[in-house]
Amino acid sequence: MEKYKTAVVGAGLVGEEIIKCLRESRVFKESEIKVLATRERRETLAGEVFEVKKIKPEEFERIDIAFFAGTEGEKGAAMMYAEEAIKMGVTVVDNGADFRLDSNVPLVIPEINPDDLEWHKGLIANPNCTTIIMLMTLWPIYKVSKIKRIILSTYQAVSGTGWLAKEELKKQTIRAVSLKEGCLNLTEEILTKPEVYPHPIAFNLFPEIGKVEELGFTTEEWKTVRETHKILHDDSIAITSTTVRVPVFNAHSESIYIETENKIKAEQVKEILSRALGLKVVEPYPTPQMASGKNEVLVGRIREDPFIENGLSLWVVGDNIRKGAALNALQIGEELVKKGLLQRTRELKLEERFKKSN
Amino acid sequence: MEKYKTAVVGAGLVGEEIIKCLRESRVFKESEIKVLATRERRETLAGEVFEVKKIKPEEFERIDIAFFAGTEGEKGAAMMYAEEAIKMGVTVVDNGADFRLDSNVPLVIPEINPDDLEWHKGLIANPNCTTIIMLMTLWPIYKVSKIKRIILSTYQAVSGTGWLAKEELKKQTIRAVSLKEGCLNLTEEILTKPEVYPHPIAFNLFPEIGKVEELGFTTEEWKTVRETHKILHDDSIAITSTTVRVPVFNAHSESIYIETENKIKAEQVKEILSRALGLKVVEPYPTPQMASGKNEVLVGRIREDPFIENGLSLWVVGDNIRKGAALNALQIGEELVKKGLLQRTRELKLEERFKKSN
Repeated sequence: MEKYKTAVVGAGLVGEEIIKCLRESRVFKESEIKVLATRERRETLAGEVFEVKKIKPEEFERIDIAFFAGTEGEKGAAMMYAEEAIKMGVTVVDNGADFRLDSNVPLVIPEINPDDLEWHKGLIANPNCTTIIMLMTLWPIYKVSKIKRIILSTYQAVSGTGWLAKEELKKQTIRAVSLKEGCLNLTEEILTKPEVYPHPIAFNLFPEIGKVEELGFTTEEWKTVRETHKILHDDSIAITSTTVRVPVFNAHSESIYIETENKIKAEQVKEILSRALGLKVVEPYPTPQMASGKNEVLVGRIREDPFIENGLSLWVVGDNIRKGAALNALQIGEELVKKGLLQRTRELKLEERFKKSN
Repeated sequence: MEKYKTAVVGAGLVGEEIIKCLRESRVFKESEIKVLATRERRETLAGEVFEVKKIKPEEFERIDIAFFAGTEGEKGAAMMYAEEAIKMGVTVVDNGADFRLDSNVPLVIPEINPDDLEWHKGLIANPNCTTIIMLMTLWPIYKVSKIKRIILSTYQAVSGTGWLAKEELKKQTIRAVSLKEGCLNLTEEILTKPEVYPHPIAFNLFPEIGKVEELGFTTEEWKTVRETHKILHDDSIAITSTTVRVPVFNAHSESIYIETENKIKAEQVKEILSRALGLKVVEPYPTPQMASGKNEVLVGRIREDPFIENGLSLWVVGDNIRKGAALNALQIGEELVKKGLLQRTRELKLEERFKKSN
């Protein structure tokens, strides 16, 4: 088995989960893992002690593949270091949002559009968690009948925001409980002043993920539109989303409504989804507690619209840190190996140098 | 001011809120309030000490209006006692679900269909909380353009299930915190064995409110369909709902998508809703913590569909115990007084007796 040299950039929730996925991977399990972050330190991640290095271009020397584990909404590491790493021949898989819509960058869910890896130029983008979880469910249906429209409402866990947000939910909960005043006194004063979120998150929820942009939709909502169009190579799908943060630690839930071009009965949808890779039908429905820590995206409550001919409702839950981020990135790496495309970045650089020297 | 003789049947969350609403009401504030429940006891409700009487038909003697405060899903009091009370001339406002679809029973939101009170025969049904909160928002739009379809996803508080459910969320939360293990250990074993709900509700959520019925939709989901059709006198609206219980103590949130017959711009919708009775536009959006304890239904995030000509998305939050139940019931009572219809039940009985004796 080949021992790859891997780098994980960022030691937050997603970074740690990538390390876990690397160790569980048939392809990468024996890899060298270098962890890069904003400051040097010794840290235990996924049960393993790492000498975390301060990120700088030289650290990418001789690395085969680097996973940039930036969480949603955080700019930075990939913007600053991906280009230099690629110049050094490193293939970069970026979990951040910065390059996802770049026409030079494939945006890949390996179960859906692995062939887009074939035109990579060193950088592959990992899609948004909500989009991955949604498309894992919709793609097997799409293959049977084109999907004309999607109306999505989400129930997103705080882990999507990162470690600090989990701490915020924990702190607010502990504070509310220790007052022993019961539930009716959960005012903004009693809950700790929110730091990460614009509102208290304990025993509360709010429809704001990212910033409000065009037409009043948020960054997160636009991601579900534009990333879906790019991954499915189909700009004609009408998508409207409402993305909501809820007081759940991990795993995103989604209430998905679709209209297909051709009629598919609920029973047939269930059968299609039961056979799909990376997906599990859970009757009557999955919950975030069931999905957290699982590789599969879970789906239930498959129903035909009582009034609209080709309408279908689905309830989908997936671990946003795992399949929604780390696992998908890792699977991109495995697919690159399988397709013989992992060293392509290095080859492209050599070709370039060769051309220049001629 | 006339001093009405009122009865409140049930001393749970809704019963207590009805007492609060009666005391705040310009019309009923001086009323005698008799509280009836399954067992006799002295109890403080809404800050007032009541000699709660055991419910039996005789207790309805000389009562003008009785509010049956059964919560969603609980059958009983109205099924057993409403008919007898009506025979004694009492006008009954029932918060339960048993009579809502009965064609002899008006189902009323006073801001929307007060005229349906005119054909009451002693019993008026109070709609489901989710339906009230939704229609408070949609009715002002409907008056401008017929609504062709509704796709609803809800985020429903535990108070809708009653006091025991609030206790369950509280207990599970306290248990999780006292273990001091942090968020990742919130398994079914750590949370107290759920008693009220089929799954843990702390830091979790699930799309099951009521039982699964026709086509895989739940009781609660069908309520939003059938009650909407009845209240708006329009069976042609295509409605598909997914109703979800979330770890919030009070106030239901709703992600509502509609398609109108004629195009209405987001700005115009905002203006229409700003002027509507019982409604408040909150920018950029309301949260359950903002709506809890408020009379108004709060609405924000009014957006036009980027792809579908007449599509609109809205985010709506309302206190399910207040406008969703107690306040609406109380307003039905006020409207009956205003229309001179409160004594109608007594008059109907007298007419009947007169006819029989001839």
